[in-house]
Amino acid sequence: MENRDIEAAVQKIVQELEMKSAMNLKLATALIGQVEKKAEEMGVKAVVAVSDASGRPVAVHCMDGAYIGSYDVALNKTYTAVAFQMPTDRLAALAAPGGELYGIQNTNDGKIVIFGGGEPLYRGDLMIGALGVSGGTAEQDTMLGRYGKNKLKDVIAWK
Amino acid sequence: MENRDIEAAVQKIVQELEMKSAMNLKLATALIGQVEKKAEEMGVKAVVAVSDASGRPVAVHCMDGAYIGSYDVALNKTYTAVAFQMPTDRLAALAAPGGELYGIQNTNDGKIVIFGGGEPLYRGDLMIGALGVSGGTAEQDTMLGRYGKNKLKDVIAWK
Amino acid sequence: MENRDIEAAVQKIVQELEMKSAMNLKLATALIGQVEKKAEEMGVKAVVAVSDASGRPVAVHCMDGAYIGSYDVALNKTYTAVAFQMPTDRLAALAAPGGELYGIQNTNDGKIVIFGGGEPLYRGDLMIGALGVSGGTAEQDTMLGRYGKNKLKDVIAWK
Amino acid sequence: MENRDIEAAVQKIVQELEMKSAMNLKLATALIGQVEKKAEEMGVKAVVAVSDASGRPVAVHCMDGAYIGSYDVALNKTYTAVAFQMPTDRLAALAAPGGELYGIQNTNDGKIVIFGGGEPLYRGDLMIGALGVSGGTAEQDTMLGRYGKNKLKDVIAWK
Repeated sequence: MENRDIEAAVQKIVQELEMKSAMNLKLATALIGQVEKKAEEMGVKAVVAVSDASGRPVAVHCMDGAYIGSYDVALNKTYTAVAFQMPTDRLAALAAPGGELYGIQNTNDGKIVIFGGGEPLYRGDLMIGALGVSGGTAEQDTMLGRYGKNKLKDVIAWK
Repeated sequence: MENRDIEAAVQKIVQELEMKSAMNLKLATALIGQVEKKAEEMGVKAVVAVSDASGRPVAVHCMDGAYIGSYDVALNKTYTAVAFQMPTDRLAALAAPGGELYGIQNTNDGKIVIFGGGEPLYRGDLMIGALGVSGGTAEQDTMLGRYGKNKLKDVIAWK
Repeated sequence: MENRDIEAAVQKIVQELEMKSAMNLKLATALIGQVEKKAEEMGVKAVVAVSDASGRPVAVHCMDGAYIGSYDVALNKTYTAVAFQMPTDRLAALAAPGGELYGIQNTNDGKIVIFGGGEPLYRGDLMIGALGVSGGTAEQDTMLGRYGKNKLKDVIAWK
Repeated sequence: MENRDIEAAVQKIVQELEMKSAMNLKLATALIGQVEKKAEEMGVKAVVAVSDASGRPVAVHCMDGAYIGSYDVALNKTYTAVAFQMPTDRLAALAAPGGELYGIQNTNDGKIVIFGGGEPLYRGDLMIGALGVSGGTAEQDTMLGRYGKNKLKDVIAWK
């Protein structure tokens, strides 16, 4: 094995290790901050939450005037997105009457949310956690979730 | 009643007792092992669970990389299959809007799963427990549940 | 009633209203930031939470490496401090066997925490919310809770 | 950097990666098997569970004749051991009346177990999950938990 091969291998491994530990408080609050800014622009008062890859909460922010009920919903959107590794709006169709997972909304101790606003967060192919947004219409929440998911790369670069 | 009739009656009772106690850890893990092997072939990362005839868990295995959310679902599929003595995919139609059991998914503390992957396990006519599989599509889970149910005879013979 | 009395009364009401709405996301995260800094100095990996005067969470931050179990505890410390308008360590004696509130820890759906780390937050005489800290020893959590409570004035001034 | 230094660095990183992903179904069931064997020798019918570093279950086995109530207890012992990164019997003193964490048994949705039988599992300094044993006396469960924890190294070597 040549030197540069070894270096490349080391770098790859180090990157993977970094990615694995990528979900941390600093990243979570930076991402939440971006989503809050966007929500403000849209006139939405949202609860914005980030969980890690095991569905454990890392940070939750409730914007002033957000619905009391949105706290559970935002957090459960992160759980759902991690638990089934898909955006929560994809469950909307799957869990609707006639859908192949109809009824999944009644499992997992009421923590499954089947409308938009929950997005798994990826670094490359690796799911490092999830973002959950609740407070606007389902459409607004979905949009804000997507926005945050797409902002992740920038936020990581800024760190 | 003649002697040989009594003997026959005793034998029948003993057999039933044996069958009743047929669900045990050794059988459960052997069956789970078979389902895991099949799931691997299919590229599915599943949670596979077996409960006894009273719906109590006997063994649960989470294959590496299985969805976090599948633990509850697999276990609850065993509960559902035992609780109503039917495969969980049969409940899909019964519990759909318009179905005669619509709403059953809201009973039993959120432990009712109404899509495929849960199968009651029988020895002869006697239900000895249930198998629950979660991790693939509903179709894959249903297939794996059936596969396990049909493997039961072989697994019992091997013991 | 003279004009200037009316003016004074109005001003007092406006001030109280302002104070009442003093608990907001900006203040909560600023306060949490102060407590995090102190926790880092002390080598404690804490979950730090702030709730408003009705016990609803405003923000929760989980420092990297904090105990998984601390999320519930920190949040419930804010609930407890608001619910009974006292620091949670005061409940330790009251809720101990022989104490006059022995058993209160079994009420309120398991949200009562009876060791230190939860502090009601005041502006003047007005309780505007609570701070909850969990992650160190009970002594460290209590110290960090007190620290945050005392920092509140500075944090409000900075805004 | 010389070749052998690089090799050593690579090896260290690879080991760390391996350790991080060390908790998997194969390891969990091998460890559970060891604990079951020991329990049988002691005449204890136990539920034995292993969770990963985020407190998510990996495998649960209920030995024939184990208490129905032990399922929750064993699983919650793994949760507790991970959630506060300590053996559950250490909580016995801390959570007793007069202890500094008295009352912690009422938090975390009833998932905190404060008697022995739950052990965090380590590879080097890294907590990779926890073992939970329930079915005997507290002393027997504690002994079996310790036994399993100490067997971990052998089990990993066998793989």
